[in-house]
Amino acid sequence: METVSTSRSFEGTQGVYRHASTANACDMTFAVYLPPAAEDGPVPVLWYLSGLTCTHQNVMDKGEYRRFAAEHGVAVICPDTSPRGAGVPDEKDNWQFGSGAGFYLNATEAPYAANYQMARYIVDELPALVAAEFPLDMSRQSVFGHSMGGHGAIVLALRNPGRFRSVSAFAPIAQPTTAGWSRPAFEKYLGPDESVWRGWDSTLLIEDGQRLDELLVDQGTADSFLNDGLRPWLLEEACRKAGIPLTLNMRAGYDHSYFFISTFMESHIAWHAARLKK
Amino acid sequence: METVSTSRSFEGTQGVYRHASTANACDMTFAVYLPPAAEDGPVPVLWYLSGLTCTHQNVMDKGEYRRFAAEHGVAVICPDTSPRGAGVPDEKDNWQFGSGAGFYLNATEAPYAANYQMARYIVDELPALVAAEFPLDMSRQSVFGHSMGGHGAIVLALRNPGRFRSVSAFAPIAQPTTAGWSRPAFEKYLGPDESVWRGWDSTLLIEDGQRLDELLVDQGTADSFLNDGLRPWLLEEACRKAGIPLTLNMRAGYDHSYFFISTFMESHIAWHAARLKK
Repeated sequence: METVSTSRSFEGTQGVYRHASTANACDMTFAVYLPPAAEDGPVPVLWYLSGLTCTHQNVMDKGEYRRFAAEHGVAVICPDTSPRGAGVPDEKDNWQFGSGAGFYLNATEAPYAANYQMARYIVDELPALVAAEFPLDMSRQSVFGHSMGGHGAIVLALRNPGRFRSVSAFAPIAQPTTAGWSRPAFEKYLGPDESVWRGWDSTLLIEDGQRLDELLVDQGTADSFLNDGLRPWLLEEACRKAGIPLTLNMRAGYDHSYFFISTFMESHIAWHAARLKK
Repeated sequence: METVSTSRSFEGTQGVYRHASTANACDMTFAVYLPPAAEDGPVPVLWYLSGLTCTHQNVMDKGEYRRFAAEHGVAVICPDTSPRGAGVPDEKDNWQFGSGAGFYLNATEAPYAANYQMARYIVDELPALVAAEFPLDMSRQSVFGHSMGGHGAIVLALRNPGRFRSVSAFAPIAQPTTAGWSRPAFEKYLGPDESVWRGWDSTLLIEDGQRLDELLVDQGTADSFLNDGLRPWLLEEACRKAGIPLTLNMRAGYDHSYFFISTFMESHIAWHAARLKK
């Protein structure tokens, strides 16, 4: 693992690191914020999964999470959203597939399967690396994210019972298998058999019996992706039928940007911190 | 004035606007955050002047000011750092001069004098525009900034007694007329007569009799520009001799980035808000 940069911030350290990923067969970059409490011993881990087109950097720059991570003594880890670089298959002009659009799944179709293994990367490879490199208490992990990453957070929590103490999302894609901006990616990563897609769709995983203890979602009412791409009512319906307690906060006038996310970052981190410290 | 974008954030509105500037003879872009209190009537104004290479956007993305502007009911206005665009003379490969490096002064030398009138722009033209367009109480203004913009804030306050209720800075350039990264710009903007430069240098303005009621400065000890470019001890000495109360917080381990600025944004906004509401 190589250190790209470190900066002191809110009395902790915001670092950026790079390593050769086995899962994705390319170099991957990620950000780790260690709160001041990490100087005294291992701290709980909160994973933040970003949305389409983002890298580790968008939330690091605009998410305003450090103040509250410092206050609650929680590390925040922000991975990239896909494999990248020479040799990684991509569609340069398509922001909904390839680089920046890994959808936190494990691709099965050539040529993508060789690199697009973001679920294995986030669930197995990166946790092993950070556990070895940083003072983290890996028995206390939670996950949240935005849009594609909000969906990724919910899906990874559903697929890995017991791994995460809590899961929340800002404006998650509720049902990517039926949304126009994600269906083509699912077909290219997973092939034409839509029954396979069910394993990577939050509403269908719930329909198929996977469960969460509870779920927190914030969604802006002025989000331009609300009706076609995000459709939180599908998640609401799935949770209702499954008896999963969902807190869905519809935020009047807020859009899909980090101006929205940063506004509600405090409440999400406080929510996770309460569960990480139980 | 044209609206580039608006987003709801912290129950207020973060907007970006563009207008044809007479002072700078080009289109200029700026950001205005209106706190929720602006819905009930005019709010005080806090100007944030950015550093070398920045536009209005850097602090808007990374400064984490909206939470506290909302809390204290203060508008935050973030101008660009120079004129820009086709027809504006520039040195494309020089980050210390031209675009992104207006130094908040009024150039006197050809060909720069036709556009580089940032002091007139910030002190006269932009205040008149925003006073007409937004619910602002222009009798209550304060100013702060970072690096070149921290210096700009101090200089504009020194040159315009009574305009600003308070002034503060993050890692300001203390004495640009003798620092390597700013001397060449001063010569190109203002000509070879260094006596003219004194009117745009914070320490020399103080030496020549200009005064502030008080001054707040935060400076990181791990700032790579500390010893050559910034040199806060020169400002400290000037303030000491002039009897200007200076609070200089040396922040252990912090660098020159927005990871530093965002950490201490809360205390600066609280400091200004207390003075704006007197």
